Formats: sequence, structure tokens, C-alpha cells
Amino acid sequence: MKLLALDTSSMVATVAIMEEDKLIAETVLNHKKTHSSQLMPLIKEALDNCGLTPADIDYFAASLGPGSFTGLRIGITTIKAMAQALNKPVVGVSTLDALAYNLPCSEGILCPIIDAQRDNLYTARYKWKKQELNRISDYDILHIDELIDVLNNQNEKIIFLGDGINQFQQILEGSLKEKALFPHNALSIPRASSIGGLALIQIKEGNVQKAEELLPIYMRKSQAEKQFEERMREK
Amino acid sequence: MKLLALDTSSMVATVAIMEEDKLIAETVLNHKKTHSSQLMPLIKEALDNCGLTPADIDYFAASLGPGSFTGLRIGITTIKAMAQALNKPVVGVSTLDALAYNLPCSEGILCPIIDAQRDNLYTARYKWKKQELNRISDYDILHIDELIDVLNNQNEKIIFLGDGINQFQQILEGSLKEKALFPHNALSIPRASSIGGLALIQIKEGNVQKAEELLPIYMRKSQAEKQFEERMREK
Repeated sequence: MKLLALDTSSMVATVAIMEEDKLIAETVLNHKKTHSSQLMPLIKEALDNCGLTPADIDYFAASLGPGSFTGLRIGITTIKAMAQALNKPVVGVSTLDALAYNLPCSEGILCPIIDAQRDNLYTARYKWKKQELNRISDYDILHIDELIDVLNNQNEKIIFLGDGINQFQQILEGSLKEKALFPHNALSIPRASSIGGLALIQIKEGNVQKAEELLPIYMRKSQAEKQFEERMREK
Repeated sequence: MKLLALDTSSMVATVAIMEEDKLIAETVLNHKKTHSSQLMPLIKEALDNCGLTPADIDYFAASLGPGSFTGLRIGITTIKAMAQALNKPVVGVSTLDALAYNLPCSEGILCPIIDAQRDNLYTARYKWKKQELNRISDYDILHIDELIDVLNNQNEKIIFLGDGINQFQQILEGSLKEKALFPHNALSIPRASSIGGLALIQIKEGNVQKAEELLPIYMRKSQAEKQFEERMREK
């Protein structure tokens, strides 16, 4: 069984191919956000390097968000198009879950933070129990001050992941002091291998979809949609 | 400052490019051990994807081993050739250190195990202290039975990484029971980003070498060398 997974929810474009539970190829590109021109060549490179064609893939998996609206649309559309053309099932994975999956066996609370603009963050909290990742909160959109209030009440180490670190690392360190940990950059960015790993768990549980059913998790409306609704109300 | 890192010490061929402490590109190929034909194309792909040429790279880093003799020779020779042609410094990183660096913020003892043939393993033990990885043992070659004896005396969780898992996971689980943890495959294989991350620490400490000084850490003689010496003694 072979699976192709990708994540384009942030600056990072990343593609992975798994065979059963083994990673056979992964590319991470964290250079410039040019997913529309780079994603298909990255997929082709990964397949070519493994001597595979798209028809060899049994399942297609994508990060559903939250994250960049445009990035998510490019990734999800690409996965849907390939799966539909080949009549194969798809699996969707939360970007927040996948970030936490980057750090197995870690101590304390994992807290992915994804930029939601205007000092807000998409976030959730996780703990590993033996080999299993457990989400211990709702998926949230929190202002940085609200997030710090929530985390100040925790008595454990808190490990941050995701692009929210770029903007808020200093504030989090200032408030949470030694409790706040920041793993090295290579593991705090999205990785398609984590999308693939979580997709495999869903496949084993029979939790797959038809290509046309796959939808992004925006968690809130885009700025363009909000402005459109405002204009409609004013009429 | 830009750094190119690679690891070819096992079945996996992996290349990463870092800019300061940020990973900008990484490829992991865990398909077939054909490093001699695949490594240069992988390096070219990574550079092309970042819009870079070899002349843009300031430091070259390679995994020095222990691991596959042939794999190490291919990787180290490639890095030395590029660095020497461009008159740039090189950095060597232990494969065991780099495997442990795959799992920042983890709980308990990290124990990379690399196949050393005949039921022996190249190994060492590590712990994370805040954001710093500390080696807490010598670099060892241990028979699997010796390793289990050493680990049975530890009262903490033990997280295994490396290709030794393929052969010994069942035996380790049988002996160490719930104490033994095995992170998902994508993080238990060598990653050039970990070679790069540890190389950056060495660069900051001024610990760089000239290309011609870089040597593999075989930890012991190859089978061919041993047979040659035996034949010499018999004469």
C-alpha cells in the first residue's frame, strides 16, 4: 500500500511518499511561498526518485488546515485532482495534529501555533501517551494574550511548534519563562511525513473519503469573505 | 550563511540546505541503497529548488559514521570534493549524535542503534536538558545482549532510533517491556537536517576543518581490512 501526502498550509511546501508505515521519500521546501509553481514539480521529483508513477499510489492525503487560505486551496485541489483522475480515496489531516506528530515521545504539552493574523493564533494542545498522540483541548483561535493565560495555568513544560513561533517566541519566553521550549526549526515546520503518518492511522480505521468530499478546515472566514458579507449587509 | 549537509551512512540518502539556523530544503530518500547514482542528483535538486548553486554554499557537512562503510565513503567523498573545489570548510557529525538530535524535547534516554552486523550495534545514550542534547555514555559497539543488560539498569523510558530497530525491535520490547519506545519511522531514520543542525553548533564553536582533514568514524575495521590483516599474519 502506497500513500502520497502533502502540506501547503504555510510557507513550507512538503511532499512525502509512504509504503505501509515506512517513509520512502520526503521533500521539505521552506524557501519561498510559490506553491502554485513548485508543488507539482516536487510531487514529480518524489515519485521519480522512487521509480513510481501517480497510478502506483493507493491513497492521497493532504493537510486540511488551518493555515494560509491560498496555500490550503492549492494543496487540497492538487490532491483532489490526482485522486479523482485515478479514482483513489483521499484522507484529510489537521495541520495542528500533524505539527504535534512531528515530536513523538516528547515530555509535557505540545502546543502548535499557526499565525491567524492580528495577534491571533490557530492552536490546540496535545500530549503523547506511550506511542499515541492525544489532543487534550478543542481546536481554538486565541489571541496571544488569551493563549498565555491558558498556558500559565499548566504546570508542565510547553513545547511550541508552527509558524506562530516566528512572531511570538520572545513574548512566550517572557511570560512562560523556563516552561516554554522551542525545538529546532527543522521539526517545528510542517512535514508531509507527519500528514502521512496520521493519514495511515485514519486509513486503518477506515476513515477515508471520496476526492469530491475533501474540504479545507479554515476555522474562520477569509478576509475577502468577511468584507463581501459586510458589503452585502450595508446594501 | 548557507550550509549543505548530507547523510549516507545507511539505506537512506538525505540532503539538507540551511540558511542560518533555518532549514530551507530537505530531501530524504529511503528507497533503494543506490547512493552512488542518486546522491549528486539529490544535491542538484535541492540546490535548484532553492535557486542556489554550489558556489553559494559557505559550509559543507557530512555524517562521519558509524554506519555502512560504502555509504559513508560515498557521502564523505562527495562533501570533500565539493568543499575542496570551492575552497570552503567542512564539518563532520557523528551519525549517532544526529539520530538523537531527531527527537528534541523528548523524555527519558535516547538510544540510537545502528546495525554493526553479527548481532552487534553501534550505539550511545543521550538525554535532552532543556534545549541541549547531552551524550551520557561512550560511543559503543555492543552485542544486543550487552546492550539489554546496560538498559535494564536504567529506570527511565528508552527511546530507540536507527536501523537497528528493523532487526531488534521485538527482542528489545520483549526484554524492556513498556520502558522501550519506538518513534514513528519518519523520525527514526537519518535526516540531513539533524546533521546540519549539529554542524551549525560546531561552526558557532569554531570547530570546522579543511576538506582534506575530514575522515570517517568507522569505529572498527571493515570485514575486508580484517581479512587482509589475517592473511598478512598467516604469511
